[in-house]
Amino acid sequence: MSSYAARRTALRQELQAKSLDALLVTNLLNVRYLTGFTGSNAAVLIDAVSDDKTVFCTDGRYLTQSAKQVPDLERVIDRPCDLALAKKAKGRLGFESHHVTVDGLESLTEAAEKAELSKAAGIVEKLRLVKDEVEIEALRMACAAADRALAALIGHGGLRPGRTEREVARELESRMLDHGAEGPSFSSIVAFGANSAVPHHQPTEATLHAGDFIKLDFGALVDGYHSDMTRTLVLGKPADWQVELYDLVARSQAAGRNALKPGVKVSDVDHAAREVIEKAGHGEEFLHGLGHGVGLEIHEAPALSKVGAGTLSAGMAVTVEPGVYLSGRGGVRIEDTLVVRESGPELLTLTTKELVVV
Amino acid sequence: MSSYAARRTALRQELQAKSLDALLVTNLLNVRYLTGFTGSNAAVLIDAVSDDKTVFCTDGRYLTQSAKQVPDLERVIDRPCDLALAKKAKGRLGFESHHVTVDGLESLTEAAEKAELSKAAGIVEKLRLVKDEVEIEALRMACAAADRALAALIGHGGLRPGRTEREVARELESRMLDHGAEGPSFSSIVAFGANSAVPHHQPTEATLHAGDFIKLDFGALVDGYHSDMTRTLVLGKPADWQVELYDLVARSQAAGRNALKPGVKVSDVDHAAREVIEKAGHGEEFLHGLGHGVGLEIHEAPALSKVGAGTLSAGMAVTVEPGVYLSGRGGVRIEDTLVVRESGPELLTLTTKELVVV
Repeated sequence: MSSYAARRTALRQELQAKSLDALLVTNLLNVRYLTGFTGSNAAVLIDAVSDDKTVFCTDGRYLTQSAKQVPDLERVIDRPCDLALAKKAKGRLGFESHHVTVDGLESLTEAAEKAELSKAAGIVEKLRLVKDEVEIEALRMACAAADRALAALIGHGGLRPGRTEREVARELESRMLDHGAEGPSFSSIVAFGANSAVPHHQPTEATLHAGDFIKLDFGALVDGYHSDMTRTLVLGKPADWQVELYDLVARSQAAGRNALKPGVKVSDVDHAAREVIEKAGHGEEFLHGLGHGVGLEIHEAPALSKVGAGTLSAGMAVTVEPGVYLSGRGGVRIEDTLVVRESGPELLTLTTKELVVV
Repeated sequence: MSSYAARRTALRQELQAKSLDALLVTNLLNVRYLTGFTGSNAAVLIDAVSDDKTVFCTDGRYLTQSAKQVPDLERVIDRPCDLALAKKAKGRLGFESHHVTVDGLESLTEAAEKAELSKAAGIVEKLRLVKDEVEIEALRMACAAADRALAALIGHGGLRPGRTEREVARELESRMLDHGAEGPSFSSIVAFGANSAVPHHQPTEATLHAGDFIKLDFGALVDGYHSDMTRTLVLGKPADWQVELYDLVARSQAAGRNALKPGVKVSDVDHAAREVIEKAGHGEEFLHGLGHGVGLEIHEAPALSKVGAGTLSAGMAVTVEPGVYLSGRGGVRIEDTLVVRESGPELLTLTTKELVVV
């Protein structure tokens, strides 16, 4: 059974538990998750009993591509896909009420003559929380592309005095492509010196100087899966305050990683890392949550934060990324992507977390 | 008055005509259009009477950025923004029913205690149909970045035997960055030889050979505005069928451009170009609409197609892109971005449309 068919089988259990006869999946990422289709327009009507009555829809542009990517389902070539599938549905039809718009529901209701529409939000997203091994392999490749790009950037002298943040961002993104990425998984953050104190700094024409912190937050996209990593380096000999700040964040990050276990509350993971920083008197300068899920989206559930709800399960892929930001001076963030496992977290980001001096 | 304030003033006329007391704008592109804010989370409550009662909302990450980009409106820092603004609204409150989800409306309804929600789809999009001069200047810069990137690619010998489609796509995208683009405006299409017969071919490891058509469909993003252009070139001496096919598409494209006048039906523009290809017996091989609007989105209204509704107005920015695709042999598409003007269309894509032989 393909991993897509296995995911549809898992989804069927959820549909049956909710007494739905079918689910109309219109969120394109969910369609990709359930069918493997990567085009820009599609929907799938998942029958609650079997793949035999499950129907995939896309438009004429994707005739060839969809035949290749979705060989195992009945295909309809039509547009708009949601209405074409709603017409075919019978019985109690779930729709993704967190994705379908108010106007969209009006059209769906008209089209679904033989079915009764029922709100069914987040069912596929719930399955997506726990990654299967095919997904984890894609995440592994995405993390490797980012690791290798950073190594090549450093190895080729890409971090030298006078370079701009924009130049470094561009070289990093280009080197990720060299190492198998389809693209960057988000707009890279490159921050030199005092700019490193801005958590989500966008690269500017600012140039690199001796003694600067160099904060790099970036990731690669492979097979639709996103990696996410941050490293903070120093150009030239680091000052004492930089070494201290770095060590503090590294200890916090290790505490966060070590807390990743199935059954642990996500808020407790945040707390484990935050406590280290708070005890050092820098709690007010750790401005964001500890981490987030990654997968087909760069930010997805679960959120590892103070206010996050729920517990970890084996197979969840998350980031752990504490940071301390000293306004006007500089900041440090260290971030890995990991998979929660029964036997302890699997680290997908392999770059060293010792303070790298370039 | 800033162009953003002028757009809000124009919007107020629409709100008053619909007897709305305010419009809750949650579509992020519409928020950008009306305020200039470029962050990833925001909403704006546009009061139907004046900017004095208009409120902008974003979250804490954008405290500094929003102060700079939106200096002229009351600001709220909160999340979620839609609910924070709905709480403040009074009277008849329009919401973007083509954008707000079914679950989103439920939360909005709870939050809007002092207001009565009313569907108000597409009001801002209607204004966005006609570009102001600030927008047209951004489109001009975006088109120039793409023009210059192609010239540099050709000038530096980027189109030589043995290169792969992926390599050329990457060089083209990199050269757009050199010429002022924030990024590519969509995933570039580079197709060699028989691949050029696939309208939306994604670049592969296929290599360039003498006699190949080279179809390049790409664009640049500048200030959030998208350019879109296609050129089809030949490597080495073109065969007679290639010259004939190229001339046919070029004549069709010229007919389409010449039909761009205020007051003309969009379906008539499509017809003007399609007729040329149909008369030559290739109507079945022109597989798509003639063009589309461009602006803050790469595809926006109006659609220039057989089934498109409505007429052109001065200030609309559109593409004109006929193509003929001979399966297994090769295809030609030629595409410009233009602005509809009273005095005749303004061409923003300046690269020659003669058959370029490299």
